[in-house]
Amino acid sequence: MMPRTVIRGGLVITAAEETHADVLVEDERVVALAASDSDVARGWTADRTIDATGKYVIPGGVDPHTHMEMPFGGTFAADTFETGTRAAAWGGTTTIVDFAIQTKGHALREGLDAWHLKSGGNCAIDYGFHMILSDVDEGSLKEMDLLVDEGVTSFKLFMAYPGVFYSDDGQILRAMQRGAANGGLIMMHAENGIAIDVLVEQALAEGRTDPRYHGEVRKALLESEATHRAIQLARVAGAPLYVVHVSAEEAVAELTQARDKGLPVFGETCPQYLFLSTDNLAEPDFEGAKYVCSTPLRPREHQAALWRGLRTNDLQVVSTDHCPFCFTGQKEMGRGDFSKIPNGMPGVENRMDLLHQGVVDGHITRRRWIEIACATPARMFGLYPKKGTIAPGSDADIVIYDPAAQQTISAETHHMNVDYSAYEGKQITGQVETVLSRGLPVIDGRAYTGRAGHGRYVRRSTCQYLT
Amino acid sequence: MMPRTVIRGGLVITAAEETHADVLVEDERVVALAASDSDVARGWTADRTIDATGKYVIPGGVDPHTHMEMPFGGTFAADTFETGTRAAAWGGTTTIVDFAIQTKGHALREGLDAWHLKSGGNCAIDYGFHMILSDVDEGSLKEMDLLVDEGVTSFKLFMAYPGVFYSDDGQILRAMQRGAANGGLIMMHAENGIAIDVLVEQALAEGRTDPRYHGEVRKALLESEATHRAIQLARVAGAPLYVVHVSAEEAVAELTQARDKGLPVFGETCPQYLFLSTDNLAEPDFEGAKYVCSTPLRPREHQAALWRGLRTNDLQVVSTDHCPFCFTGQKEMGRGDFSKIPNGMPGVENRMDLLHQGVVDGHITRRRWIEIACATPARMFGLYPKKGTIAPGSDADIVIYDPAAQQTISAETHHMNVDYSAYEGKQITGQVETVLSRGLPVIDGRAYTGRAGHGRYVRRSTCQYLT
Amino acid sequence: MMPRTVIRGGLVITAAEETHADVLVEDERVVALAASDSDVARGWTADRTIDATGKYVIPGGVDPHTHMEMPFGGTFAADTFETGTRAAAWGGTTTIVDFAIQTKGHALREGLDAWHLKSGGNCAIDYGFHMILSDVDEGSLKEMDLLVDEGVTSFKLFMAYPGVFYSDDGQILRAMQRGAANGGLIMMHAENGIAIDVLVEQALAEGRTDPRYHGEVRKALLESEATHRAIQLARVAGAPLYVVHVSAEEAVAELTQARDKGLPVFGETCPQYLFLSTDNLAEPDFEGAKYVCSTPLRPREHQAALWRGLRTNDLQVVSTDHCPFCFTGQKEMGRGDFSKIPNGMPGVENRMDLLHQGVVDGHITRRRWIEIACATPARMFGLYPKKGTIAPGSDADIVIYDPAAQQTISAETHHMNVDYSAYEGKQITGQVETVLSRGLPVIDGRAYTGRAGHGRYVRRSTCQYLT
Amino acid sequence: MMPRTVIRGGLVITAAEETHADVLVEDERVVALAASDSDVARGWTADRTIDATGKYVIPGGVDPHTHMEMPFGGTFAADTFETGTRAAAWGGTTTIVDFAIQTKGHALREGLDAWHLKSGGNCAIDYGFHMILSDVDEGSLKEMDLLVDEGVTSFKLFMAYPGVFYSDDGQILRAMQRGAANGGLIMMHAENGIAIDVLVEQALAEGRTDPRYHGEVRKALLESEATHRAIQLARVAGAPLYVVHVSAEEAVAELTQARDKGLPVFGETCPQYLFLSTDNLAEPDFEGAKYVCSTPLRPREHQAALWRGLRTNDLQVVSTDHCPFCFTGQKEMGRGDFSKIPNGMPGVENRMDLLHQGVVDGHITRRRWIEIACATPARMFGLYPKKGTIAPGSDADIVIYDPAAQQTISAETHHMNVDYSAYEGKQITGQVETVLSRGLPVIDGRAYTGRAGHGRYVRRSTCQYLT
Repeated sequence: MMPRTVIRGGLVITAAEETHADVLVEDERVVALAASDSDVARGWTADRTIDATGKYVIPGGVDPHTHMEMPFGGTFAADTFETGTRAAAWGGTTTIVDFAIQTKGHALREGLDAWHLKSGGNCAIDYGFHMILSDVDEGSLKEMDLLVDEGVTSFKLFMAYPGVFYSDDGQILRAMQRGAANGGLIMMHAENGIAIDVLVEQALAEGRTDPRYHGEVRKALLESEATHRAIQLARVAGAPLYVVHVSAEEAVAELTQARDKGLPVFGETCPQYLFLSTDNLAEPDFEGAKYVCSTPLRPREHQAALWRGLRTNDLQVVSTDHCPFCFTGQKEMGRGDFSKIPNGMPGVENRMDLLHQGVVDGHITRRRWIEIACATPARMFGLYPKKGTIAPGSDADIVIYDPAAQQTISAETHHMNVDYSAYEGKQITGQVETVLSRGLPVIDGRAYTGRAGHGRYVRRSTCQYLT
Repeated sequence: MMPRTVIRGGLVITAAEETHADVLVEDERVVALAASDSDVARGWTADRTIDATGKYVIPGGVDPHTHMEMPFGGTFAADTFETGTRAAAWGGTTTIVDFAIQTKGHALREGLDAWHLKSGGNCAIDYGFHMILSDVDEGSLKEMDLLVDEGVTSFKLFMAYPGVFYSDDGQILRAMQRGAANGGLIMMHAENGIAIDVLVEQALAEGRTDPRYHGEVRKALLESEATHRAIQLARVAGAPLYVVHVSAEEAVAELTQARDKGLPVFGETCPQYLFLSTDNLAEPDFEGAKYVCSTPLRPREHQAALWRGLRTNDLQVVSTDHCPFCFTGQKEMGRGDFSKIPNGMPGVENRMDLLHQGVVDGHITRRRWIEIACATPARMFGLYPKKGTIAPGSDADIVIYDPAAQQTISAETHHMNVDYSAYEGKQITGQVETVLSRGLPVIDGRAYTGRAGHGRYVRRSTCQYLT
Repeated sequence: MMPRTVIRGGLVITAAEETHADVLVEDERVVALAASDSDVARGWTADRTIDATGKYVIPGGVDPHTHMEMPFGGTFAADTFETGTRAAAWGGTTTIVDFAIQTKGHALREGLDAWHLKSGGNCAIDYGFHMILSDVDEGSLKEMDLLVDEGVTSFKLFMAYPGVFYSDDGQILRAMQRGAANGGLIMMHAENGIAIDVLVEQALAEGRTDPRYHGEVRKALLESEATHRAIQLARVAGAPLYVVHVSAEEAVAELTQARDKGLPVFGETCPQYLFLSTDNLAEPDFEGAKYVCSTPLRPREHQAALWRGLRTNDLQVVSTDHCPFCFTGQKEMGRGDFSKIPNGMPGVENRMDLLHQGVVDGHITRRRWIEIACATPARMFGLYPKKGTIAPGSDADIVIYDPAAQQTISAETHHMNVDYSAYEGKQITGQVETVLSRGLPVIDGRAYTGRAGHGRYVRRSTCQYLT
Repeated sequence: MMPRTVIRGGLVITAAEETHADVLVEDERVVALAASDSDVARGWTADRTIDATGKYVIPGGVDPHTHMEMPFGGTFAADTFETGTRAAAWGGTTTIVDFAIQTKGHALREGLDAWHLKSGGNCAIDYGFHMILSDVDEGSLKEMDLLVDEGVTSFKLFMAYPGVFYSDDGQILRAMQRGAANGGLIMMHAENGIAIDVLVEQALAEGRTDPRYHGEVRKALLESEATHRAIQLARVAGAPLYVVHVSAEEAVAELTQARDKGLPVFGETCPQYLFLSTDNLAEPDFEGAKYVCSTPLRPREHQAALWRGLRTNDLQVVSTDHCPFCFTGQKEMGRGDFSKIPNGMPGVENRMDLLHQGVVDGHITRRRWIEIACATPARMFGLYPKKGTIAPGSDADIVIYDPAAQQTISAETHHMNVDYSAYEGKQITGQVETVLSRGLPVIDGRAYTGRAGHGRYVRRSTCQYLT
C-alpha cells in the first residue's frame, strides 16, 4: 500500500471551484477534501505532508495530442515515450494521449501493438492512445469497433497530406458514420491538402523555398474551408467532431457558427498558435524552420481570436501537438525546400506554464486554465473523473504550482530531447513545484523523482463531453 | 453550536462534477467531502446522518429573480416573503434575490429599507436584493455606489413600462457607466415599451382585448430590438449586461451574436418560456390571463432556441420571475382589457423540478441543470462560493433530490399563496426530499421543518462571472 | 439587305427601363427607339410593321445553360440542336449557350470541334459554347487560353460525378488560377460528389432505389458545402466564380455571405427549382424519374429562398439546364436503381413563360424578369450589348409578348423533342407572340417561320458582369 | 415651341446601358435615340446640334437630399434656392429634392407653403420636397395623406436631436404605419440622439470641446444601433425604410443583414463619407469645424465598407446632404463648444464629379455611377422615368460630361455660396461640360446659361423602387 499523503493549505483550483482545502490522498487516489481551517482537516494524519501554503493545488495536466517517436519523412520525432513523458511531468502534465498510427495496407491492430511496444514500460506518467486511420475501408471500419471496446475511442483523419494520411470526403463520411454508431470520436486535421499541394508545387517552382513559404501556401482560407467541410460531413453523418490544432481566425469562425447552431463540434488549439506567429516563421538563417508545423503559425492578429474562442468555449481544449525535431540534422533536411522540413514543434513541457502566463496576462481565468488544460481534455477523451480534476475518487494526479515563481524558458534547461526551444528566452510567471502521478511524487520540489514505467496505459471510455 | 451532519451515499452533483461522496456538515457549512467507499468517510461521526443512497445531493437552488409582495397596478403579488420563501424551500431553492423598488421621486435607500422591513424576520431561506431604479438621476447614481458597498450589487432598469419604471436610453447609458465604475451589474427588462404601448392602444381601440393580445402586441421583434439596443449601450458604456427573462428566439440570437464577439453579455430565461407558449395565452374563458407576464409567452417553436441557448451558454441562468397574482380577484382585473391584467406568474416552487424534467427530457445534462439553477446565479450575483455549490467551506445549502420520484404539479398541493398553477396537472419525474439551509433541515423527508426568520439577508459581492 | 421593320406601340421592357416606344430595326439590329407618341416615330417607314399595342416588347431570352444531344450514361439528351433551338424560339429564347464536352484523354479542341459539327447549320437561333473540362492538366490549361481567344470564355467544372466529370480541389484551383489570368469564367457544379456516392451506394444496398432517394442522398448540406468550398478556392485563386443550378436554401446562404463581402461570386438557378419540389420526385409509379436532375429538386420551402435570392441579386441568372430524356426508354433505364436514371429535365421552351408567371405571382418585377433571363446572362457570358437588351446597336433579338394570354403547358403542345412535360397542365398567364432573331421573324403570330441554320455561332467576349 | 436639339456621337450611359447613340430632344423631352452610325440618326435635323464625340452623355444628376436656406441653431444654411440650384447645375445635377420643415406646433401645410415660397421662381433646375415631421400626432398623420396626394411622398424623421426634430419610437412606429398605408416613404436620421446627448454633455463638462469630439461622441455604435432599431420598427409596421447619410461600417452591416432577409430597407451615403474622415475633423485651428455634420465623418477605414455597400447594392443612393455654413461667422459659433457648430457641409456642386472620381479610382463602374446618382434616386422618390435616365419620353435633363478633363476643386472657383470647400485642392478627373434641363442649356460649354425660375416644382409619385 502506498503512503498516505495530505496536501495542506493550498488553493485547490479545478475547472469549477477555487477552494482553500486540504487534500487527502490514499493509495493512488484522492479520497477527501476538507476546508483547511476545519477540525476535520486538522485531524488528518499522513505519511507525507506537502505544504502548499501560497501555492495552487491543481489537477495534473492532460495533453491529448502528442506524437512521441513519430516517424515523419524518413526521420522520427526526437522524444521517445521515456524522454517525452518525463518532460511532460516536469511541465505539470500527468497524462498524455498519443497517436498510434495505422500503416497503409496494414491493420489498425498492428499499429496499435507497435505503439504499445514503444510506450510500454517507458512512461513516467499515464498515457492513452488515439488511432490514426491511414486507410478507411471495410476492414479498418470494423476494427474501429474493437478498438473502442478496448479503450481507444478516438480516431484521427487527415484532410491534408495526400498520399500519406489523407482521407477523401467519402472515407471521412464513412468513418464518421461508424463513429456515430460505436461512440468513437473523429478528430480532424482540417486543411485542404489537395489545394495546398498545388500551391506548394507552385511556390517551389518559383523559387520560394524558405520556411516562411510553408506558412504562405497553407492558407488560412484552406484551413477554414476544410473546417467547414468537416463540420458539414459530420452533420450528414450525425456525428460529433473534434478539430485538432485550430490556428486561423477564420477556422474559429466556422466553429463558432456551428456551435451557435448547437452542433457537437469541438476545437483544440495549441500554445504555439497563442504565442507565436508568422514573424517566427520568417526568422532569418533558416531559423524559421524551428516553427514549421501544420496547421502553420498565423499572423499575430489571429491570436486574439484564439484567446477569445477559448474564453467563449468555441475552442475547448489546448493541447501541444508535441512533435519535436532537432534543428540540427532534422529540421535542416528542408534547407532549400520548405516542404521537406519535418512538421512539428516541441512543447509538451511548456503548456501548463504558457497557459498560466495567459492567466497572468488576463486572457483567461484560473479556472478556465484548468478547464482547457485538464478537465475538458479528460472529458473529451473519456478519462473523467479519474483525470482532469481533484475530487473524491479521482486519481491523485496533482500539481503544486507556484503562481509567483519566475522562470525563463530555454533549451538549456528544458527536459525535452530536442536542441532548441520555440520559446527560447520567454519569461514566465509561475512554475511547477511538485507533481503527483497517482499519488506518487514524480517531481518533488523541482527535482525529478519519477521513473520510466510508473506510467500506465489508460483505457478510455467514449467522449464524455457530449452529454 | 449546530449539530454535525453527514450525508452518506448520494451522488454529489455540482456544476462541474458528479462524485459518489459523503458530505460532512458542521455549523452552517460544508467542511469536507470524502469518497463514499473510503475509510475516511466511514470514520466520520455525526449527530445526524442522512442516507442519500440512490439520491442526488445537490446545491440548494439560487433563484435570482423573484418579486414577493410586489405592488403592481393597485394590487400586490400574492406571496409574502414568508409564504414565498417557504414555497421556494419546498421546491429545493435555498436562496432568492428579490427586487427592492425605488419609488419615483424617492431615494433608493427608502425603497431598500422598505424591502428589508417586509422581508426581515419572515424568510425561511436566505435572501438578497437587487434594486430597481425608477429614477436615474444624479442622486440615484450616487446612491448606487453606496448600495454596492452594502451588498446590493445589481440594478434593474426597464426599457418597457413608460411612465412607471421606464428609463430612456440616456438614463440607461448613465446607469451603465456608473455600474462599469462601481461594479454594479445592470439587469435589463428588454422590450421596446414605447412602441408596444402604441400597439396596445391600437389593439384595445380595435376591440382586441383578450389575454392573447397581450402576447401579440409585445412582439418578439420588439424584445430583440431592445436586447440589441441594450447590448450596444453596454458596449458604449464599457459595462457588462444581464438581460432578464429572455423569451424570444430573436432575442437569443442577439445575445449569441454579442457573445460570439466575446462581450460580457448575459441572458436569463424562465421555466414558463421553456414549457409554456402562446397556446396557453389563448386558453378560453379568460384562462389565458393566468399566463400573462412580460416578456410574454411565445409560440411553441421558440422553446427549442431557448433550450439550445442554455446548452451553448448563450443563456446562463434560469430564474422564475416569480410574481404570482390570484386568478380570482387579481388576474380578473383585466377582463375586457388585457392591459389591466397584473403581469406575472407563480413559479418559485417549480423551477428545480421543471429543469430536472429538462434533464429527463434530454434537453440538458445534470451538471448543466445545477449550473444554470445554482452555480451561475450565485456567481453572477456575487454569492459564490457560499451559495451555488457543494465544496469545502461553502454554506450547507443542500438538497437531497430523488431523481426517480413521480409527482404531479397542482395548485391543490403546491405551497405558493396563489389559487392556480401554471403547470396544473403536469407530470414531473424527480422530487425534492430533504433541504438543508445553512445546515438546518427546512424540508425533511417531504415535511416542512423550517421557520420564518431562519433565512438571513445576504450581502452580495459584485459579479463573479466576469473573470 | 434585310427588310426594315418597325415595332409600334408596345411597352419596351429592358432590365432597366419600361418605355412606350417604337423600335426601328434595320438589317439585323436595332437602330433606334422613339417615343411612340412622337413625330419622329410616326415618321418612320418600314417594310414590315408589327403592331405591339398592349404587348410587351422585350429582348429575346438568353439561356446560358443547355445540353442539346448530350451523351449521358449510354444515351443522349433527346433534343438535337435543331429541335432544341426551335423549341427555344417558341419559348421566346433567341440565344443559347450550350456545353461542349472534353472527352477524357482528348483535347478540348476535339470536343469543341465535335460540338460545332453537331450544331453548325442546325440552329434556329444564335448559340455559343461553354467548355466542360474533363481533364484539368497542363494541356487543357494551355488550351483554355486559346479557347478564350476564340470566344469560348467560360469553363465548367464538376465537384460531383467522380470518375466522369469530377475535378479534385487541386484541379479546380489550377483552372481558377488560369481563368483569373486569361479571363475565362469558371462555372461550377457544386455538389460533394465523393460523399454523395457513398450515400448512393448505401441507399441502393438498403433497397432504397426509387427516384425520390435521388433527392435524399444528394443532400442540401452537400450542395452548400461544395458551394462554400468553391467560393474559398476562388478566393485563393483570385478568380470570379459562377455556380450553376443552385437549388438549396443553404447554398443560397453561402452565396449571400460571399456577396456581402463583395466577392465576385454569382449564382444561377432554374425554373424547376422555383416551381417544382421533392413532392414531384416522390410521384408514384416511377413518375418521379421525370424530375431527376442534379442538383436535385428540394423540399418546397426552399423555393422562397430562391425567389428572395433572385430579388436581392444574390442569384443573378435563371437558366434551364435543359437536358431532356424521354420517360419511355430513357428515364426508364433507372427502374430499380435511381442512380441509373439519366439526369436532366426539359425546359428550354418554358423558361420565359414560367418567369413571367413569377412576375404575375408577385415574386419579381417585370424589369427583373428581363434582367435575370436576358440581360445578366448576356453580360455574364460576354454577349452584351448584342444580346440581352433592346438598345440602338444591339442585335434585333426581340420578343413580342402578350402578358394577358392564357396558356396551359403540356407535352402535347410543346415543341421540345421529349415525351413529357415537367409542368404538365400548369396554367400560365402570358405567351410569346412573335420572335425576331437578328431581325428575322422566327415565330410570327404563334407560327414557326424560322429555319435550321439561321442561328449563328457567337464568339463571346469575357465576362462583362465583373465591372 | 422649344428648339429641336440633337446630341451627336457621345457614349450614352444610363444605369443599364452604354450605347453609342445620338439623342434627339424635342420640346422638353427626349424623343428618340438612334445608333450614331445609322442612317436614321444621320437623317435627323435640329436647331441645335451638340457634338459629344469623346464625351459621355448622361442623365442629369438627382440629388435627393439638400437643405437650402435651412434654419439651424439661429442661423441659416448659406445657399438659397437660387444660389444652391445654380451650383447644382454647375455640377451636373438637374433635380434636387429638398426638405420642407414642419415647425413644432404648426401644420405640415404651413411648413410646405413656406418652402414653396422660398423656392418658387428661384430655382435654376427642377426640384421637389420631402417633409420633415417635427410633431407626429393625429394631425400630422392625417396631413401625410394629403401631402402624398400632392406629390410630397416622403417624410423624414429623426432619432437624433431630442427637443428639436426627435421622434420617439412610438411616433416613428405610427408614422411608419401611416406610410405603409398611404405609400409615403419614411426617411430616417438614424442616430441614438438620447444617448449621444449624454456623451455630449459629459465631453463638454470634461473640457473636450474641439470639433473632433463631435465625431467621438456620435459613436458608430449609436448610428448602427439606431439603424437596427429603425429597421425593426419598419418590420413591425410593415413599411419600407430609407436611412439617410449612412456613415458607419456597422450601420452598413445592419442594412446588409436586413437586405439579406429581403426586407425593403434602403441606405444612402454621401461623398463626404466616401472621401473624408475623422482626420479632417481633427484639423487644427478649429478648421475641423468645416467638416462637422451628423452623422459625423468616421475613421478612414469605414470608407471601404461604404464603397463595398454601393457595389453590392446594400447602399442604393449617394446624395449630398448639402447644408452649407460659412466658416466665418457660422461655423465659428461653435468655438469652445463643438455642440454649437452648425451641422452641415457644402457639396451639391461636387457630387457627380466626386463619384466619377470613384469610377476612375476603380470603386464603381460607370453605369453604377449613374445608377446611384441619377436613376435610383429618381425611382426611390417617384421621379421616374421623367428623371434619372435618358430614354424616349424622359425629360431632357442631360449632361455632356468630359471624362478626361482635369479639374481642381476649390472655394475660389466653386459656385456654392460658402466660403470654403470641403475638398479644397482635390484633383478630379472628369468635368461637366454642358447641362440641359428639360431641353434647355443651363450650362453650356462650362458657362452658366440658365436662370432663376426655369426650375419647376415636381410632384412626385410614391416610391418606385419597391417593385
